[in-house]
Amino acid sequence: MEDFSFYNPTNYIFGKNALDSLASETAKIGKKVFVTYGGGSIKKNGIYDKVMQQLTDFDVQEFGGIEPNPRVETLRKAIAQAKEFQPDIILAVGGGSTIDGSKLIAAATYYDGDAWDVIATKGEKIAAKIIPLATVLTISATASEVNGGSVITKWETNEKDYFSTVKVNPVFSIVNPEFQYSLPVDQSAYGVIDTFSHILEQYINQTEHATVQDRFAEGLMLTLIEWGPVVLKEPTSYSARANIAFAASMALNNLIGSGVGQDWATHELEHVVSGFYDIPHAAGLAVITPRWMKHIGLTQKLAKMAQYGRRVWGLSGTNEEVAQQAINKTSEFFESLGVKMTFSEWGISSTEVAKLVEKAVNRDPMGEIPLNEEQMRAIYSDCF
Amino acid sequence: MEDFSFYNPTNYIFGKNALDSLASETAKIGKKVFVTYGGGSIKKNGIYDKVMQQLTDFDVQEFGGIEPNPRVETLRKAIAQAKEFQPDIILAVGGGSTIDGSKLIAAATYYDGDAWDVIATKGEKIAAKIIPLATVLTISATASEVNGGSVITKWETNEKDYFSTVKVNPVFSIVNPEFQYSLPVDQSAYGVIDTFSHILEQYINQTEHATVQDRFAEGLMLTLIEWGPVVLKEPTSYSARANIAFAASMALNNLIGSGVGQDWATHELEHVVSGFYDIPHAAGLAVITPRWMKHIGLTQKLAKMAQYGRRVWGLSGTNEEVAQQAINKTSEFFESLGVKMTFSEWGISSTEVAKLVEKAVNRDPMGEIPLNEEQMRAIYSDCF
Repeated sequence: MEDFSFYNPTNYIFGKNALDSLASETAKIGKKVFVTYGGGSIKKNGIYDKVMQQLTDFDVQEFGGIEPNPRVETLRKAIAQAKEFQPDIILAVGGGSTIDGSKLIAAATYYDGDAWDVIATKGEKIAAKIIPLATVLTISATASEVNGGSVITKWETNEKDYFSTVKVNPVFSIVNPEFQYSLPVDQSAYGVIDTFSHILEQYINQTEHATVQDRFAEGLMLTLIEWGPVVLKEPTSYSARANIAFAASMALNNLIGSGVGQDWATHELEHVVSGFYDIPHAAGLAVITPRWMKHIGLTQKLAKMAQYGRRVWGLSGTNEEVAQQAINKTSEFFESLGVKMTFSEWGISSTEVAKLVEKAVNRDPMGEIPLNEEQMRAIYSDCF
Repeated sequence: MEDFSFYNPTNYIFGKNALDSLASETAKIGKKVFVTYGGGSIKKNGIYDKVMQQLTDFDVQEFGGIEPNPRVETLRKAIAQAKEFQPDIILAVGGGSTIDGSKLIAAATYYDGDAWDVIATKGEKIAAKIIPLATVLTISATASEVNGGSVITKWETNEKDYFSTVKVNPVFSIVNPEFQYSLPVDQSAYGVIDTFSHILEQYINQTEHATVQDRFAEGLMLTLIEWGPVVLKEPTSYSARANIAFAASMALNNLIGSGVGQDWATHELEHVVSGFYDIPHAAGLAVITPRWMKHIGLTQKLAKMAQYGRRVWGLSGTNEEVAQQAINKTSEFFESLGVKMTFSEWGISSTEVAKLVEKAVNRDPMGEIPLNEEQMRAIYSDCF
């Protein structure tokens, strides 16, 4: 186990009655609330009204229209509005995209310069005064509700990158699993896959004897394997929604990544793809993960892949056999959730590999042991 | 899964170089440091000197002599000293007893009345101004380094009780597993048993479908079963010390107890015992736990006991068979760590049962389903 510090000051308020705390928790921070949200599904499913009913005693302004893979071009408009309004608190009502975008608003409203600087410097350039952020979560996937990370796309240059600082950790996050009953099947599946991938990125490492972290990660994956199929069949199963929601938050609140080497090459490879093509992040992860496992996991991280196969999938045999079967199990699991397993099915041509590799090699190094160009090409080529 | 909120703002600084952060973390809070510790083992093993080297630029006063099962009689003296000194921060250097005692100092120094009021009202009566608390941990067991709980004994009336509030959660806790290399074998064993018991108290519940919490709890128990025997044989195994230390903190930082029914009858029954007899808390838990399992676990919580047997001990059979074998496994595990498994071995006579039961029935209700007098008598009687 490596040295680490674990500091996560977000108050995580979970359950059927979680939203009842919104007014009292908000009042602790201030009066002026800047409510941010996405494409408007919260107006259809009633969550917008429930939130606003809690905020009748507050001075509220709102900004809607933060898109999936949130774009700095959109957020600059929100920042301009926030500069005018000078809110005490930003309340992001939505999923990872809305929350990620709102983190940039929190971090850049009082920054003298372009908001993209915050991303480009990985949070080094940031406003001295950060606006406190809170969230009402409507889709469990990114765990943005319990961490300081934010992934933003610059559409004009096809860049997708992130910054991360505990300064934009939500002060509180309200997670009512019932709010996810009306999610489309594909989005429910993507939430499970995104979470599973977050766990693998931290779990398939070369660190020895990080037993607590390993057991927690395995426990979260077993939870997803148990409840993932249920949620697709019974979208209003509270137990399924609750366990998936809690697992998603625990998967990326820095806990299971404490004191271990982390990889994240799969995520980085995917960010390149969804920087060019507007496909869901988790859809890209589902395609890339098994290929990353084949080209990197089986060689650099065979022992851990075998542990994964034994403890998560109950497999037995030699390390090589178990690791190979574990890849198949992972693929089958994703496929059983109804997602496409090649980029071809997404309408992307394999002639694009050169373009993807070129973009990928020009980013920061990817992976616990950085991938070389050859490995990137092998992984991408296998995805079609 | 039940509704919950999880809020744990302690900065948990872990590893071989964790103490290097002490000066910078302390400086964020203030200049005047009230260092508290126990019987003086930190002077023998060098930790006292290492801490003081970090604090050369601070205004330091110290209070030593906080005993195991810390007594309000001792802490009143520390509170009197703190009232005079008016520290910016209390730095508890020690194990659970020193930290628990220091929480009372933090909570009661500016309270107008006797410190025991804080305990007697479970933290309802408490100073308006709490002194920030930080810790340097030297024994992993109680998880006091990551929670707001404090167990205090009033020796003059044989009472042992607790208060709990996030207001006395440590601001930061420094956990260097190497500091535990020199612990005596029995204290190492007690740390493992105390932690195992904390997990069981939260895990053997009647809540359905709290899968994340169950998997985390099981993962922590598997960690202790793996590393507990190692630490007794190789007290300077970093991996063993690190995993036991991290597991101990995770066992009682409110995480695995979120959204589930909790029991704690075993702890309450033990507090009665160690209120009368000065035996280590974990030694009492080792004796009582298997008897609680037999008299309560097998009836009220059979399904969960069976899950415990299957997932933690790898047993198979009917629920009844697996649950019964799981009790034996638990007993054998504790015994393998070298602890006494009856109160008779501790020199306590079975004629004391009536006294113990009388004290126990006059406390707050114990257990997820409160124990009646008959059940208490059955459990205690079985412990000799």
